[in-house]
Amino acid sequence: MTISIIKIGGNVIDHPDKLEDFLAMFATFPGKKILIHGGGVMASRFGENMGVMPQMRDGRRITDLDTLNIVTMVYAGLINKQLVAKLQSLNQNALGFTGADANLIRSVKRPVKDIDYGYVGDVKEVNGHFIELLLAEQIVPVICAITHDKKGQLLNTNADTIASEIATSLSAKHTVNLYFCFDRPGVLIDEKNDASLIPLINEEIFQELKEENVIHSGMIPKLDNAFMALNKGVNRVWLGLPENLLLAEKGKNSGTSIEKRRYDLY
Amino acid sequence: MTISIIKIGGNVIDHPDKLEDFLAMFATFPGKKILIHGGGVMASRFGENMGVMPQMRDGRRITDLDTLNIVTMVYAGLINKQLVAKLQSLNQNALGFTGADANLIRSVKRPVKDIDYGYVGDVKEVNGHFIELLLAEQIVPVICAITHDKKGQLLNTNADTIASEIATSLSAKHTVNLYFCFDRPGVLIDEKNDASLIPLINEEIFQELKEENVIHSGMIPKLDNAFMALNKGVNRVWLGLPENLLLAEKGKNSGTSIEKRRYDLY
Repeated sequence: MTISIIKIGGNVIDHPDKLEDFLAMFATFPGKKILIHGGGVMASRFGENMGVMPQMRDGRRITDLDTLNIVTMVYAGLINKQLVAKLQSLNQNALGFTGADANLIRSVKRPVKDIDYGYVGDVKEVNGHFIELLLAEQIVPVICAITHDKKGQLLNTNADTIASEIATSLSAKHTVNLYFCFDRPGVLIDEKNDASLIPLINEEIFQELKEENVIHSGMIPKLDNAFMALNKGVNRVWLGLPENLLLAEKGKNSGTSIEKRRYDLY
Repeated sequence: MTISIIKIGGNVIDHPDKLEDFLAMFATFPGKKILIHGGGVMASRFGENMGVMPQMRDGRRITDLDTLNIVTMVYAGLINKQLVAKLQSLNQNALGFTGADANLIRSVKRPVKDIDYGYVGDVKEVNGHFIELLLAEQIVPVICAITHDKKGQLLNTNADTIASEIATSLSAKHTVNLYFCFDRPGVLIDEKNDASLIPLINEEIFQELKEENVIHSGMIPKLDNAFMALNKGVNRVWLGLPENLLLAEKGKNSGTSIEKRRYDLY
């Protein structure tokens, strides 16, 4: 079967109007689908309300135990359950998950090298079989950015990575399309100019763009993630604005499509 | 099949040592099982940390929007996911739920009469079919005290009621035993004397105890709940300490067994 995996970030989650529009559109998105979400901005806000300030080291966020508890409450509790309840009202049979639930995503705590990231997980294994079973039951899995180590420890995990890993796992048996919705119309040459959108990136173009230093550094991990997924069997990766998701599904011009190689088609 | 529904309260959840012991025991509990939990004490503590004080009216707790968000974070996020991760480490394939997930429990917001309880749900419908499907897949559902109205609204719901309603729903096709673990050895005649335990209560005894005013008023709703479940087809209801759960399962003397009528056996 064809499975669409759609990842949304803070730009959707933090704006009730945008979220409502997005969910209404997501409900009309055809076929089997999975929603993946983070919620870092909201978690930081709740943390600050509770006197838990974001811990940064060398510009990277550290997940100490207080932070882990807050992201667990905000991602798996507040955001996930509000998404599920709203999707249910739109007749989408949503079911919320962390990676601990049904052992969906097992990870290991990131080894300490130069930096101790704390309770952060690197994904090791995805339970694709159970996801297939749910999809066959018309369930819409809604998965938040928390995993576990199968030894009792929850772990904060990057939502883009979760989306890619689930896509990769399911691509062994299915045609999987991966959509990353974020706050830009796609990959831009000039971050301040939406008209500088690059509509298609393949590996050759990506290498050139990296060598010429024209891609915003924040995009590099997203694109590395995308190519990793493509190289492991995912059919298609797309990046763009959430409001263009249905256009993307129909193959119409919008956002940035990531392809393994331009000439794979021949 | 035989299904055991086990409800735990704050006396287990709030004490890490007790929780660990309980979960180790729960993991050895035989057969198909479902865990139901609340977490009111922890939610009150988090709420106070965030400046949201418990709202009471005529001695009853009111769930305003801030309180709903906090119980959603604490029950569905923190507590539920910690329980799931710990059970996974004990090779129990736990999967956490609110009533919104997979539309497991639909409720309606309690109508305003003398008191406006706020975002509190009265259960209307349980999706027993999906629970059966999960149990057949060796999943252990872990269900928290939140439901939804299928119109997009989450609702705070009494965990004892959720346990009884799920038990009732499943009893149409299965033999269902319902275990309420709480902070007393069972139903006591004298709240301060554990030796005053009543080992068995049927409807006649319950009427007598109520007329003679010997049962602690806090027990009345628990027992009403128990008899409602028995009258709707539940096989057995038990109340007692979590550490006596396995004794209760084996039918050994412990806690209070609730039976429909003493002479049903003849």
